[in-house]
Amino acid sequence: MLSKTQQEQFLAKAQKLAPQLKYRTVDADAVITPVKDKSVWQDYRMKKGDLAGFLKDNDFANGSSFIVSMPETVVGQAAFSVDFCKGYADSPSRIQITIGELPQEVVNADMPYNGTLNGSWLQKEIINIDDLPCDVILPRRYSGKYIRFDMLNVPGSLKFSNIRFITCGAEDFMPPPPEHLPELLKKIDQASIRTLRNCMQLSFEDGPKRDRRLWLGDLRLQAMVNKVTYRRFDIVARCLYLFAGTLLDDGEVCGCVMERPAPRRGCHTHDYAMLFPIVLKEHCSWSGDLAIGEELFDLACHQMKLMERFFTDGLFTGVNDPWTSWFFVDHDLELDRQAAMQGHAVAAYRALAELAAMLGKHEQQTKFAAKADTLAAVAREKLYDPVSGVVVSGKERQISYASQIWMIISGVLTPEEGRKALLAVENTPAALRPSSPYMFHYLLEAWDICGDEKHLLELLTDYYGSMINNGADTFWEVYRPDEPFFSPYNDVRMNSACHAWSGTAAYFLRKGN
Amino acid sequence: MLSKTQQEQFLAKAQKLAPQLKYRTVDADAVITPVKDKSVWQDYRMKKGDLAGFLKDNDFANGSSFIVSMPETVVGQAAFSVDFCKGYADSPSRIQITIGELPQEVVNADMPYNGTLNGSWLQKEIINIDDLPCDVILPRRYSGKYIRFDMLNVPGSLKFSNIRFITCGAEDFMPPPPEHLPELLKKIDQASIRTLRNCMQLSFEDGPKRDRRLWLGDLRLQAMVNKVTYRRFDIVARCLYLFAGTLLDDGEVCGCVMERPAPRRGCHTHDYAMLFPIVLKEHCSWSGDLAIGEELFDLACHQMKLMERFFTDGLFTGVNDPWTSWFFVDHDLELDRQAAMQGHAVAAYRALAELAAMLGKHEQQTKFAAKADTLAAVAREKLYDPVSGVVVSGKERQISYASQIWMIISGVLTPEEGRKALLAVENTPAALRPSSPYMFHYLLEAWDICGDEKHLLELLTDYYGSMINNGADTFWEVYRPDEPFFSPYNDVRMNSACHAWSGTAAYFLRKGN
Repeated sequence: MLSKTQQEQFLAKAQKLAPQLKYRTVDADAVITPVKDKSVWQDYRMKKGDLAGFLKDNDFANGSSFIVSMPETVVGQAAFSVDFCKGYADSPSRIQITIGELPQEVVNADMPYNGTLNGSWLQKEIINIDDLPCDVILPRRYSGKYIRFDMLNVPGSLKFSNIRFITCGAEDFMPPPPEHLPELLKKIDQASIRTLRNCMQLSFEDGPKRDRRLWLGDLRLQAMVNKVTYRRFDIVARCLYLFAGTLLDDGEVCGCVMERPAPRRGCHTHDYAMLFPIVLKEHCSWSGDLAIGEELFDLACHQMKLMERFFTDGLFTGVNDPWTSWFFVDHDLELDRQAAMQGHAVAAYRALAELAAMLGKHEQQTKFAAKADTLAAVAREKLYDPVSGVVVSGKERQISYASQIWMIISGVLTPEEGRKALLAVENTPAALRPSSPYMFHYLLEAWDICGDEKHLLELLTDYYGSMINNGADTFWEVYRPDEPFFSPYNDVRMNSACHAWSGTAAYFLRKGN
Repeated sequence: MLSKTQQEQFLAKAQKLAPQLKYRTVDADAVITPVKDKSVWQDYRMKKGDLAGFLKDNDFANGSSFIVSMPETVVGQAAFSVDFCKGYADSPSRIQITIGELPQEVVNADMPYNGTLNGSWLQKEIINIDDLPCDVILPRRYSGKYIRFDMLNVPGSLKFSNIRFITCGAEDFMPPPPEHLPELLKKIDQASIRTLRNCMQLSFEDGPKRDRRLWLGDLRLQAMVNKVTYRRFDIVARCLYLFAGTLLDDGEVCGCVMERPAPRRGCHTHDYAMLFPIVLKEHCSWSGDLAIGEELFDLACHQMKLMERFFTDGLFTGVNDPWTSWFFVDHDLELDRQAAMQGHAVAAYRALAELAAMLGKHEQQTKFAAKADTLAAVAREKLYDPVSGVVVSGKERQISYASQIWMIISGVLTPEEGRKALLAVENTPAALRPSSPYMFHYLLEAWDICGDEKHLLELLTDYYGSMINNGADTFWEVYRPDEPFFSPYNDVRMNSACHAWSGTAAYFLRKGN
């Protein structure tokens, strides 16, 4: 297990790899009139008007408000110029500023909040400006497409101009969409890349509005899109070092790392810990950087050593262990996680074996390949029904997409078996379907592994495409097409509309390039 | 009249004279339990408790709040350290912070505000802290003795420590009280000096909470206390240059100057314009700096040239002139200002004559002395009733303290006549009494000129002393002993509790030293 000193050395490496952030100025491009319209996603159509004319013709006294939009969802600091109208400003200006990714956040900015997460995530500031005229750059970072201004206590009436975002991120451009793609897929590609770009700050954040953390599960997905777009392998390496430097007491990599004010470990998330060997192997393979593989190989191995306690005779039995905290897999409490976790373990051992091979550690290669084979064989024996061709999980022999998917990802099922299994659950109404976009990614990956381009494209078009049709230009943390107001947090304004785990479409649209 | 270029040169001189501000850290010294008590000024007794123990024993979750007090009323930035309690802070901390000079401002921080001045003067901030632990230094400047913290949206519960003010001002110390004074007068002396210290920033502000402006009327009073305490004549000079650099279109010095973002003129306040020669003369006399007298002499003369339009045959008749805006004198709309303005003019011409003498301008000296004599003679003829020994004003021959006072200040009445006049109005129930502390200062000055030490001390003890007994450690903008909730702004929270024009007691307690 890594000593504290070794961990600190990894944190020092992470610090050295901190990317220089790049900044752009993006001007607001329209004044918005929200129009209530039940036919529109979340009930509001954001009607655009000429912003320059609006700001020229209007000034704003106490109680007045207005909303502007940005040309795209951006991350950074909202900024604007403000001046008084007549005479002079005899007193400070108290203004409320609300930034929203989606219309509900700004249209209903002042509705009571009773959600389950801390309301401070809602992007609202009340500022006091002592002297006018003034150019205001709000000090905090936000994610949004809309800015709402409410005059709380202003002297006389105010004029606004130069409303903008000063965006920040590790990259400041967008690779254009592949030309051969049809229009909708081009939009999906761009929304996917914009999601990555907006999340790619000093590390890969899960969402720039909330929770702004480095999650290992999201990192794997971001690394995939990064590979086919920005190729900022330095930031992937930085993230791996951050995990290596913030271990839990037993040496497990934590589910997420908070970077500020100093890198700090989050909680146990055992499925993510099993992704660590996979992310490390993929990173070494894609970046060609074997040194980090050598450095972190033992740590990756240690993860699987720690996981052994969840297995009995090669079968995952950890779900019932009360002292283990979290097998995430998907946002679905009903999901039996046995098969999925078995799949995680097989995939992790395979990754260790491949990494060992890359590093010339042939003894280890053999050992981990054998481990994977053993667990795969047990999986086929205990969790796969060769007659129905479907993977089952747990004592109730539950059928879910998640179970099929992870048996495909891990190679326990052949691509052809996998495809049959997926087609079978497609026709099993009782089968548990993916709940979060995180699991939808793995469904894309599973269709891809199975070589079923048709289903892959259907899923891209139906699920991701319908977000686009509902106004998305970045992909959403939560998306249930039939439940526009669904929120895991009991308030739709809390949902993140730019979320790493939803943004992998571009990987599938570009990986063959 | 001064050209724009000359004005800019004066502003450049003012800029060079900007004092280096001095900073102190003043720790909060008690936790406060507000106790409703109708026998106490403005209904709240602020019960003090041990702050260190309170902060050690308590942490604060959503909806909780607490109030701390400072050992004295201070001006500067509120600051504190904050940390989370258990686990880690998973989200930003949204905290409301209210700073108050007097109890009502913090006890009733969230009561609706319907006052006549812009509510943004109420010292309230809602801040969002992204990362904990954090030491927060609020960016704006406040004036206060109390800080209230309200947890709006915080992760779990928070611990506070190191609650303090980082004070700022041109001076950072307090001259101790003259040892010979009795206890109450010592307290009055110190509150008076603290008021000056807190208002003495880059210029002499009227009040550090509100309006934070350089008013010519307040400047004269501050210069008087400054003479017997800090002797920062550089700042008085700076203020004179600021007025000289921000003239109204006709060349009149404006009533007030706002310094930020760039020096800017306020409105016509003709009685203050007539104070300009007086302040300039007193400054030259007290500081020994005749150069500034030479520089600004013509401007001072020009003020009185401009005032000629308000006089007919040597008598002030300007009140009825509709195009003139403001003869302030006192916060009292019923006050007939004729006699007071006549007094201002005589005093101003006398000051010009004295200044001319100091500068060796004998021709001017003679001219202005003659002017003063003429106006004084007219005043005695038209406005003074030698039988009753009382000054009257206007067509209604109104009797007021203000009229007596200004005839005394200007020397139209001899000290003995003045004393009789004041004693006479004391026994005239219908006489208009001073309304604002500004006029109470001039009453102090009038008693002083008349050599009536007994009345001077009575006024100090009764009026200023009763503020002390009601909890003041700086003197208040507004004080009506029988109307605790009186506010010119329709909300007592808007009143300033540290206000320049109320702070001259120390001048009278120290001038003989």
